[in-house]
Parts: sequence; structure tokens; C-alpha cells
Amino acid sequence: MRHFQEELEDLQRNLLEMAGLVELAVHESVQALTQRDQERAQRVLVNEARINQKEIHIDEMATRLLALHQPMARDLRFLTVAIKINNDLERMGDLAVNIVERALSLIAQLPVKPLIDMPRLAHLSEAMVHNSLDAFVKRDSELARAVLVSDDAVDDLRDAICRELVTFMENDPATIARSLDLILVARSLERIADHATNIAEDVLFLTKGVDVRHHAEARS
Amino acid sequence: MRHFQEELEDLQRNLLEMAGLVELAVHESVQALTQRDQERAQRVLVNEARINQKEIHIDEMATRLLALHQPMARDLRFLTVAIKINNDLERMGDLAVNIVERALSLIAQLPVKPLIDMPRLAHLSEAMVHNSLDAFVKRDSELARAVLVSDDAVDDLRDAICRELVTFMENDPATIARSLDLILVARSLERIADHATNIAEDVLFLTKGVDVRHHAEARS
Repeated sequence: MRHFQEELEDLQRNLLEMAGLVELAVHESVQALTQRDQERAQRVLVNEARINQKEIHIDEMATRLLALHQPMARDLRFLTVAIKINNDLERMGDLAVNIVERALSLIAQLPVKPLIDMPRLAHLSEAMVHNSLDAFVKRDSELARAVLVSDDAVDDLRDAICRELVTFMENDPATIARSLDLILVARSLERIADHATNIAEDVLFLTKGVDVRHHAEARS
Repeated sequence: MRHFQEELEDLQRNLLEMAGLVELAVHESVQALTQRDQERAQRVLVNEARINQKEIHIDEMATRLLALHQPMARDLRFLTVAIKINNDLERMGDLAVNIVERALSLIAQLPVKPLIDMPRLAHLSEAMVHNSLDAFVKRDSELARAVLVSDDAVDDLRDAICRELVTFMENDPATIARSLDLILVARSLERIADHATNIAEDVLFLTKGVDVRHHAEARS
């Protein structure tokens, strides 16, 4: 049997591979929408199976390590956090699939409007995902806190996008179904950012042993 | 220190209390909408704090039991499943809050239409939540499978509601913002049902040691 610390490193490596797959899925789902690229959209759908397999694999690894090595304190905290991050990543993968489904529907129709704010929202959300994982790898609590703070900007931008699209729908009812698809894309991106926030909270728990969930003051 | 089995029972009791709070929140959020009852809506918002506290408490209990007792096999599986169910319940609580936020916006305006399918969707989703927890308590894999099967009916009803509301918007653009709120309520209810599905999958893992996530055949 390999040394426990090596197995923990292997687990972290798998989690980062999972994160890489998910980051790519999120990025490509939005690219598929903005570039109206059906092939790209299909690739995201195909890759989801790999993300799902990896989630199960990581879950099994973490559970086995919990059972075999009966870790204490810091290592135990790492393993429970790994299980949670794994879960958040898998849900982000699902949300990328939701975006692709909307994108495929939108690509088949005329564009409602040039997408300007949506790529900005995507960029913000993707940065949060990337930074939350970076904070995890480096055990960087400052970077984790920065992720928590940027969640407000994502919410504001999401609201602005939805308000604009409602106005579009009101002015031209022919755009209703397509505008609704775009609203759902904006909400999926915001939920991806929420999962990045969860990961950032887990990083703070890991680095400081402080549980910041549901504590608004941690974000200020 | 109490006996380990007693502590596991205490954990399960706490999880069921959490489930009770969440079931009530989901039920009351939809009642607030259909009865146009602002006070009921406010109560859901107030109770969310208790759900969040309970989530953290259960998480700490489970993590402490993992660390102190270093459980094997069946007990380890129970503890990891408890952590997951706790997480799913907390997210259902969040979704009930989302519903209440839409309800408060809708109560302040004229009704778009009589709500007929929405209470049916709510009823189906609530039954799935209740049955998934019941399956957990009784370790009843048949009931867990029944929950997985009913998820399709929820998806179909959600789709029907959204299609009808889009037609409403197209026929009368004055209803767009309100119809959109109702679409978001339907989506929240469907996501609540998805979390019940997650719990049912965890119950199957607990009773049979089989991981049915991402395996469509388990649903047939």
C-alpha cells in the first residue's frame, strides 16, 4: 500500500483534473452559444460522461481513504472538503450541459440581440471557478475571500441581463422564447459562480478551520 | 462518551429534524404563492436561518464521528451519506427561499392566471422529498426506486407549465415579468425534486452498496 500522503496527493491531482474538465465545459458551453458553434456544443455533451465518471472515481477514492487510514484533524478536513468540492464541480458540469442545451436551441434560430453582457458574465464566473480552485491548491485564504467578494458582481450582472431581456420580450413578443433561453443561460452562469463560492468557503474552512457558510460577515 | 451507535442514531434524528424543517419550508413557500399570503412567505424567510444552523450542526456531528470513531464499512457509508443528504436538504431550503422571493413579487401584482398545474407540481415534488427521506429512515430500496421513477413526471409537468406560460407571454406581453416569475418557481420545484432524486440514489447506495448516479438503467 502506498504512503497515505501520496494517496492524498493523488486525490488532489484527480480533483484538479476534474476541475480542468469542468472549467473547459463551462468555457466551451458559452463559446458554443456566442460563436453559434454546434460542434462545440456537442463536444460538451460528449465530455459530460467523463466528468460524471471522474466524480464517482474521486468519491470512491476519498471514501476509501477515510475508511482505510482513519485520518485525524487536518487530513480528515482535507478529505471531507475534497468530497464537497467534487460535488460542486459535478454540478457545474451539469450547468454547462444546461447552457449547451439552451445554446443548441438558440443556434437553430435567429439571434435576439448581440451578446455583450453575457460573455462578461461568463468571464466573471469562469474566473471565480478558476480562482476558487487555485485558492484550494495553494491553500490561499486571501484568494478565497476575493472569490466570495466577486459573487456580488456576478449577481448584479445577472440581474442587469435579465432586466434587459424582459424589456426585449415586452417590446417584441416574437423574441420571448429565445429571450427566456438567454435568461436561463444567465442563471446557469450565476449558479456556476455560486458553486465557486461554495468551494471558496471550503478553502477558508481548510486553511483556518473556520466555517463561513451562511455568515454574511465573512464576505465583507 | 456515549456509545457510537447512540451517536449515529442522534445524527439520524437531527437529519430528520432538518428534513422536517425543509419539507415545511417547501410546502409553505408554495402555499404562500397560491394563497397570496405574505405572512407565510415571511415565515419561510425567517426559518431559513434555523435550517442553515442545523446544516452546520449536522455536518460537524458527522465529521466529528468520522474522526473520533474511525468507522468501517456500513457505518462509514452511513456517515458519508448523511453528509450528502444534509447538503441536499440545505439546497432545498435555498430553493424554497427562491420560491418565496418570486411569490412576494407575484403577490404584489395581479394574478396572471389561476394556478392549477403548479400546485400539482408542488405536490409531486413534496411527495418525492417526503418519500426519499422515508426510504432513508426505513432503508427501503423499493421506495427509493419509486422516487427515481417519479422524477420523469416532474420534468414533464415542469415542461408543460413552462410551455403554457410562454404562450401566455406571447399572447399578452403585459404578463411577461409575472409569467417569468412563475417559470422560475416551476424550475425551483423541479430542482427540489432533483435533490430528492439524489437522496434516493444515496439510499440505494446505503442499502445495496451500489452507486446508481449517472446510470440511467437504474431508473428503469
